[in-house]
This record gives sequence, structure tokens and C-alpha cells, in this order.
Amino acid sequence: MSQPFAIAVIGATGTVGETLVQILEERDFPLTELHLLASAESAGSSVAFKGRNLRVREVDAFDFSKVGLAFFAAGPAVSRSFALRAVKAGCSVIDLTGTFDQQEAPLVVPEIDAQGLAGANGPLLLSTPGPSATAVALALAPLRELLTLQRVDVTGCMAVSTLGREGVSELARQTAELLNMRPLEPRFYDRQVAFNLLAQVGTPDQEGHAAVERRLVRELRELLGLPLLKVSASCIQVPVFFGDSFTVSLQSAEAIDLQQVRDCLEAATGLELVEEGDYPTPVGDAVGQDVVYVGRVRGGIDDPHQLSLWLTADNVRKGAALNAVQVAELLIKGHV
Amino acid sequence: MSQPFAIAVIGATGTVGETLVQILEERDFPLTELHLLASAESAGSSVAFKGRNLRVREVDAFDFSKVGLAFFAAGPAVSRSFALRAVKAGCSVIDLTGTFDQQEAPLVVPEIDAQGLAGANGPLLLSTPGPSATAVALALAPLRELLTLQRVDVTGCMAVSTLGREGVSELARQTAELLNMRPLEPRFYDRQVAFNLLAQVGTPDQEGHAAVERRLVRELRELLGLPLLKVSASCIQVPVFFGDSFTVSLQSAEAIDLQQVRDCLEAATGLELVEEGDYPTPVGDAVGQDVVYVGRVRGGIDDPHQLSLWLTADNVRKGAALNAVQVAELLIKGHV
Repeated sequence: MSQPFAIAVIGATGTVGETLVQILEERDFPLTELHLLASAESAGSSVAFKGRNLRVREVDAFDFSKVGLAFFAAGPAVSRSFALRAVKAGCSVIDLTGTFDQQEAPLVVPEIDAQGLAGANGPLLLSTPGPSATAVALALAPLRELLTLQRVDVTGCMAVSTLGREGVSELARQTAELLNMRPLEPRFYDRQVAFNLLAQVGTPDQEGHAAVERRLVRELRELLGLPLLKVSASCIQVPVFFGDSFTVSLQSAEAIDLQQVRDCLEAATGLELVEEGDYPTPVGDAVGQDVVYVGRVRGGIDDPHQLSLWLTADNVRKGAALNAVQVAELLIKGHV
Repeated sequence: MSQPFAIAVIGATGTVGETLVQILEERDFPLTELHLLASAESAGSSVAFKGRNLRVREVDAFDFSKVGLAFFAAGPAVSRSFALRAVKAGCSVIDLTGTFDQQEAPLVVPEIDAQGLAGANGPLLLSTPGPSATAVALALAPLRELLTLQRVDVTGCMAVSTLGREGVSELARQTAELLNMRPLEPRFYDRQVAFNLLAQVGTPDQEGHAAVERRLVRELRELLGLPLLKVSASCIQVPVFFGDSFTVSLQSAEAIDLQQVRDCLEAATGLELVEEGDYPTPVGDAVGQDVVYVGRVRGGIDDPHQLSLWLTADNVRKGAALNAVQVAELLIKGHV
């Protein structure tokens, strides 16, 4: 590759893309050039980076041989159209959109498993998992040493920023209308989301599962290396701006020693275990932070094989943009 | 009993007590007199009933032999002090506070089981379960005909009204402060509840379980008549004023036929099954209603023995006040 540290961010105008650019700046990521790209309808605006305003250009016309690494955060359609083209042009790709399956693009969360990177030659196509699988896998992966996982039931309470900027502004707008006693006309969501819970995120498939639920189940199995693990997932939309939270109930073949579990979570990287009696919240702890917060580590009632956890994490940072940059840091160190 | 249809409501100034008085009026409950009572610090105010303002008097001085039936909704301390005294005075008691165990005061939800009332002689001491167990049991009880339940995992998303009027006004106050960019000083909760999730409701015990979680597990087992059923419960506080919602994941010994499950839920009393593709919400469906709404009936991903449900119900009505009045209606018809 002629310019190994030139980088492209596709989807630079979205919530995740913009945060990705911020994190590249925060971490002083070693790059020679930064190309910001987006689909035709989003191109034209500009995004701040190290005191300059970089113009966002159309991805269609971009020559991927000019960069060594590209982050794809513009949605599945754009990844499907351009990611393989980029790899063919000699550019490694980190996809944030969940478009590719395990065979095409292995998932990487550096704290759990960086094997997708081992012994790689030439440009790679890698995936970074969705926010839900990242958070849950970071908490469960270290427990595999103690427990034989048999089932995991997850309820994900997703922030409105899961659906990008429109979700955020719609929650703010609806809340203001309601507090000012004005009639509510839902726009972005099909109903009231302020002071309410929506039972699903996005449109479910024929079997009733939403894409975020399918993705959580698939990616969690892959990240834990347990393809047959029984996982059930229910993702609901809560009136929170940023930060996803999860109640996790798991069953283990062994009776569970809670102190061992706490010690194991305490020692794990990428996790912050909150002391007993206290608990983390999205607003108070997770937002803007790089770790997944864990609290309420509890055993089952009359059931020594059951464990409950509460997790909360920044869905835009560790759940997406930060993890992608961490994967890129590994790539740059070892391979590109 | 000298005046069989004279009634007392203890805790008449609280959210549940006030709704109970409203429901007695709505349903034109057959009563000759209504005595409104409260602990010393809440007595003195008045509550509207059928166009009159009834004064709330101190429970300490009340002569329970004057009434045939008393609803206790003032909290465990008041129930512990006065409920047995009322029964000794010849008055049947319906306790809404979860103070008594199964042996002292059987739980009754008329749609599920009214056996606690069968063949009774003289004054009874009965309990009505908490909102969470009522909602979940109403959905699971009819499924016992189809399925052998092995495990139930519940995440309860509790409205701020779970903690009464102060929870409601604190959410409103915090939201207004935040929207007006004023610094937030939490009062009733120990932290920000607006646009946030709190991982627990109330103070947990030494093993980390909150009282609402213990009560849900205990009452669900009792209502389903399955004392050994494995149940895990996580109850979180969400920024919703009224209406509790639940994600329920269950495992059955048999492979699950989803159409049979839907038919069974459709036919059950006290439930409203929302059509596939749509789903109920607390604000849009549950609040002010007398039934438990069920939606998102889904099978497991690669797991024919797993079933997911979404429930939402008015925590003050069916979850508390309405159920108590329905039990009273049975009592009056048959026994008092």
C-alpha cells in the first residue's frame, strides 16, 4: 500500500461516524490523511477534525487505493456496495454495520479475541459487533473460565440514539410538547416515545424478531465462540438519549460462586464493576465512557445455577466507534 | 355482622387507595357506608366519592366491628398493626401490601384462582398480589394447559408511580429542570431518573434482591401453583409515569406451538392480545385500563422450547386497586 496510514470514514455525518472521527482525534490515531465520505444525499457538509473542517465527499467517486484502511459506518446498503470494492483496491475494511457474516468478515472485540487478525496477509475485511453484543460479550467472556454457559436471556433497553440523530431530536421534541401541554404528533417514531416504552426497535421479521435482536444473538454466540449457546433477546426502546442498558440472566452447568464471579469481572479489561449496593446508570456512568459498567451481580432465588447482571454502556462509543478504532489500532500495529 | 356492606379503605390518601375509592364509585360497588382511614400523618384530608368529600380519619381509633370489609393499602407497617385486629372484630380484610405470607392470607386473582374464597366461613384475611405478579401470572396461567413451565425470566420496567405520588412528581420536576437547562438536584430518588434508567427499585436485601423482585418470584409461584418453578426477576425503574411493562422469557418441557399459544392467550380473561406486527405500550394502551396487554409473542431463535412475551398493564388499577375490588365483589356475592 502506497500510503498505509491514510484513512477513510464512510458515513462521517451520522452519529457513529462523527463520534469515530472524534475518537481518532482524542486518541491521536496515527494517520497521514483522513477522507470523510458519505452517500450522495449526506455528502457536502463538513466535520471538524483537529481544528480543521473536513468536507464530506461522495463515496461513489472515491478511489479506495488511496487509503490503507476504511471504516464503514453508513448502513448496510453502502457496506454491501463498496466494502468489497475497497478490499479489492488493497484497503482493509472495518465494517460497523453488521452487514457481513462470520465467514466474510470475522467479528473483533480486542478485549475478547483478536484472532481474526492473527497471521493476516494483505487487506482484511473485519466486522465490529453491534452495541448490544459488545456489551454483553465483554461481561460474559471472562466468565467462561468459571462457568459452562447453558442459556442467556437478555433484555436490552436501547437509547433513542440507536436510531441516530432523528431518534434523539424526536425524544427531545416530544418531551417538550408534552410538558407544555401541547398535543403530541409523533413524527420519527410511529407513536409517543417520551415517558413511554416501545416494545421493539425497528421492524420485526416474519418470526417477530427485530434485526437488533437477531444480530445480538448471532454476534454473542460468535464472540463467545459458543455457536450453539441458547440465547433469547428482547430489545425495547426506552426514553433515554444515550447509553444502552441490559438485564442479563444466565444459567450455568455448575453451581455459581458469586465471589468468584465478582473477582473475575473485577479483573477483566474493558469492564468496570460497580461495588455492591450501588449500581451504574446510562446517564450517571456510561455516557462518554469507554468501558462497560456492570452492577447488581446476584445469584438466583432458590437456584444456585442462575446469575443476574445489570450492564450499561455508551452505545455510540464502546458499542460502535471506539471498538472500531481499537481494532484499527491493532491492525496498524501488526499488519497494515 | 351488623352492617355487612359497610366498607373501610385504609391508606385512602395514597395513589392506590385513591384509585380504589374511584373504582368503588365507577363499578357502583354495593356499600352502605364508606370509611376512609389513614395513618396519623396522612389523616385529616378528604377524598371525593359520589359527589361528596369524605374526610380521612385516623386508623388507630377506628372500630372495625362497624364494617364488613376493609381494604388495606397503607403499607406493611399499618397492615401488620391493624389487619388482624380487624379480622378479630369480624371484618374481612383484603390486603394490598404484600405483608402476609400464603398461610396467613392466600393470594387471590379472580381470573386465575378464587379457591382462597371457597367454602369460607366468617371473616377472611386475603391478599391481592403486587402489580408485577398479577400481570405476569395473568399471562402465564392460561398457558399451563399447553406447556410444562420450567423456567421464567422476567425483566420488569416499573413506572415511577410504583413509589407513589412522590415518584410521579419527581420525574415531572426533573424533566422540566433538564429541558430548561437548570442544574439537576435529585430529591426523591438518589439520582437522575429523567431520561435515565435506575437498575433497582427500592433498597435491595443482603443477597442483592429488591423487595419487589422477591415478591414477584414468591407470588408468581403461588398464583401459578408451582412452588418450585425457577423464576428470575430484575425490576428496573424507567422514566414512565404510569404502567408497568415486562419482558418475559419462558422455557417449556414441550416444543412450543406459537399458534396454540396465541389462541390460548386470545381466549383468556383479563388479557388483551395485540395483533402480530403491532405491540402495546404503557401510555398508548395500558394506562387506565383493566386488562393486561400482551404482544410480541415470539418463539426462540433455534430453540423450540423458548417463548418470549411483552406485557404492559396499569400498575395502579389491575395491578392493585382493581384486583382488590374484584376480589371484594366475589366476597360480597358469596360470603360476607
